[in-house]
Amino acid sequence: MSDKQTITEKIFSRAAERPVKAGDFVLANIDRAMTHDITGPLAVEGFYEIMRNEKEKKVWDPDKIVILFDHQVPADSLNAAQNHIMLRKFVAEQDIKNFYDIFEGVCHQVMPEKGHVLPGQLVVGSDSHTCAYGSLGAFATGIGSTDMAAVFAIGKLWFRVPETIRFEVNGRLGERVYSKDIILKLIGDIGADGARYKACEYAGDAVKSLDVSQRMTISNMAIEMGGKAGIIEPDSITEEYIKERVPGYKLDTDLKSDDGANYSDIRKYDVSDMPPQVACPHNVDNVVDVTEVEGKKIDQVLLGSCTNGRFEDLKIAADIMGDRPVAKGVRLLVIPASRTEYMKALKAGLVEQFMNAGALVESPCCGPCMGGSFGLLGPGEVCIATSNRNFKGRQGSADAFVYLSSPATAAASAIKGKITDPRSV
Amino acid sequence: MSDKQTITEKIFSRAAERPVKAGDFVLANIDRAMTHDITGPLAVEGFYEIMRNEKEKKVWDPDKIVILFDHQVPADSLNAAQNHIMLRKFVAEQDIKNFYDIFEGVCHQVMPEKGHVLPGQLVVGSDSHTCAYGSLGAFATGIGSTDMAAVFAIGKLWFRVPETIRFEVNGRLGERVYSKDIILKLIGDIGADGARYKACEYAGDAVKSLDVSQRMTISNMAIEMGGKAGIIEPDSITEEYIKERVPGYKLDTDLKSDDGANYSDIRKYDVSDMPPQVACPHNVDNVVDVTEVEGKKIDQVLLGSCTNGRFEDLKIAADIMGDRPVAKGVRLLVIPASRTEYMKALKAGLVEQFMNAGALVESPCCGPCMGGSFGLLGPGEVCIATSNRNFKGRQGSADAFVYLSSPATAAASAIKGKITDPRSV
Repeated sequence: MSDKQTITEKIFSRAAERPVKAGDFVLANIDRAMTHDITGPLAVEGFYEIMRNEKEKKVWDPDKIVILFDHQVPADSLNAAQNHIMLRKFVAEQDIKNFYDIFEGVCHQVMPEKGHVLPGQLVVGSDSHTCAYGSLGAFATGIGSTDMAAVFAIGKLWFRVPETIRFEVNGRLGERVYSKDIILKLIGDIGADGARYKACEYAGDAVKSLDVSQRMTISNMAIEMGGKAGIIEPDSITEEYIKERVPGYKLDTDLKSDDGANYSDIRKYDVSDMPPQVACPHNVDNVVDVTEVEGKKIDQVLLGSCTNGRFEDLKIAADIMGDRPVAKGVRLLVIPASRTEYMKALKAGLVEQFMNAGALVESPCCGPCMGGSFGLLGPGEVCIATSNRNFKGRQGSADAFVYLSSPATAAASAIKGKITDPRSV
Repeated sequence: MSDKQTITEKIFSRAAERPVKAGDFVLANIDRAMTHDITGPLAVEGFYEIMRNEKEKKVWDPDKIVILFDHQVPADSLNAAQNHIMLRKFVAEQDIKNFYDIFEGVCHQVMPEKGHVLPGQLVVGSDSHTCAYGSLGAFATGIGSTDMAAVFAIGKLWFRVPETIRFEVNGRLGERVYSKDIILKLIGDIGADGARYKACEYAGDAVKSLDVSQRMTISNMAIEMGGKAGIIEPDSITEEYIKERVPGYKLDTDLKSDDGANYSDIRKYDVSDMPPQVACPHNVDNVVDVTEVEGKKIDQVLLGSCTNGRFEDLKIAADIMGDRPVAKGVRLLVIPASRTEYMKALKAGLVEQFMNAGALVESPCCGPCMGGSFGLLGPGEVCIATSNRNFKGRQGSADAFVYLSSPATAAASAIKGKITDPRSV
């Protein structure tokens, strides 16, 4: 058996304090644990249940826990308001300093943005899209609230070290084609369960040339093919991003998969001629070239979410729209992924531009992506969204239809009132 | 019996096409009918019920109907999404041009702003705060959805012409005391049912010196003392406001109460030394000087609503806050009353200022004021709001506490984290 390791195996070896290989069962030290307003309350209840016979009911390390409110902000129900109160109390009791109340934005944007994720870390979050932090070279994965309760108590969690699928994506993306199109393509090919419990390792020059914002989109959606994580080897682009948040940070250059590491599969792509991609209702892997669904009339456009709600995403959309208004009868909801991204957009004039175009620009939150009580679709309505899921009923009515695309395709569609190839406007 | 008339009697005389006096029963022509996303669906159903045997199921005059979405925008539930779809269909079928989808703002701001209200008109709206348009010298009143159905069908409605209570408010408002403080004072004195079915006529130099924005606040809350309307005689300030929206508009100088008109009561105030007022839980008439509740710890501040969500209100608040942040642990929600007001605030840098202070700035909507699913309070929480109602449970939990104040008092409280006299900061 070779001693060559994937980056995932290296991260787990450090976290388990012994050399491990894919398939090994480990009890791993958690570097960072994130929970939010939806899944947090059950985690907290579970934690106190575990600690019921302890005199000191303290979390293992308050500085390694991050709690954020993003799914139901501002409180959209009495239940949400009560959950917020309960979590604020927990934060105070446990002296958790990394707490973000209703103001800061979506967890998966705020975590990297505030420097809570470092390359090589083992990060868990009680949200399925926690895999987003793999964009910075962390092994990050979503866990359930009861697992999170155990992490709160002991700072460790057991894992079966996952095998890795390596996606080698080469070529040069065409005009108005983005990382969202890459990840939709990958998911469409491999299927919604094609990477089940695998570490998805994204490599190749088409990936390495992406900025952190676009990398986040790709890592974010690993779960949509069943992946346990969606990891990109950290490089100078990563290091630059981290250094802006953690002054003096220096990247460990060994934090990459060894040549000769063992992969369960290597899938190669050349995306040079790939057109924009669209995931059609009602599954994320129901992916087609945009040209196949062009002309489909839409009622709503969602530009936002942790997948594609960063300044860079909004800028792409704004540049395509120019001074053209949203098509009559279409509702464009713009929801920046975080306060920081909102402020960048505001200062660059994008909030004004979107408002002038007839959009609604909302404070950072999960919005319709999580389908609770914000911008829901009625029966028969059609939405094109830059978010990560289009399951039946996800954004309102079970008789509505959600298409997923890049911000470019969403923006082109918004001004035309129908699904539109962004290269054509 | 004198032929001297109140402005209310003059308006009803025109609308009924005969001279009328308070106490008369009339069938009056409606000049403008407004409905929104909450009360509209029942009005539409009622209309089609009335018209069930008619071949042509057409409203009496599509140009006199205004339909807006403001209470549940963007759709906060499947039910809301379905209501929106239903009303959009009605708008298309009936060729209603004055339709504002989820983007425009709160009805009572949009109606005057878009020139849909003129002095001397008889305006009905299926919302209790329709009385706000009295600020422009219209007789405007809230009606139920089934009455609105009848208006849609025949353009007429019966009324008992109301007696008038004249509020003569004189003196010069002190620093950081505003029209909201005046109306709270009036309501506190007369009580929640003190003006039941009366036309509340606001007069005196303290009222006449107010700009339209501040007049709107006073008229808006006539219903909170049981008033059928809250009317201010139109003057050059009114005319100026209307002319900006209806070019060439010329005010009918006879549109005022005659000397010697009959009043059921005349109530006189001098507000020169009046401190800022606060309505305490759980009734709007539970009003005290701010000094009596100073120091009460707050959890949330709502700056917005049709009562006090205009640019002028936001500017008052922003000027008081300066560069001071929202107090730790306090949530400040800023919700401009309309898109137009939002854009004014945006261009003046207020959105950035509020965001920098740590607030949430949301797209125009009714927000927590209507208590549906936006920024709700949990049990035991305390809010100070610039809106118009503080009934038990109005903004979430029945165990929460809502105080009502001016934007100045709300802003001072936001930076201090407790109810604060705005003159002290």
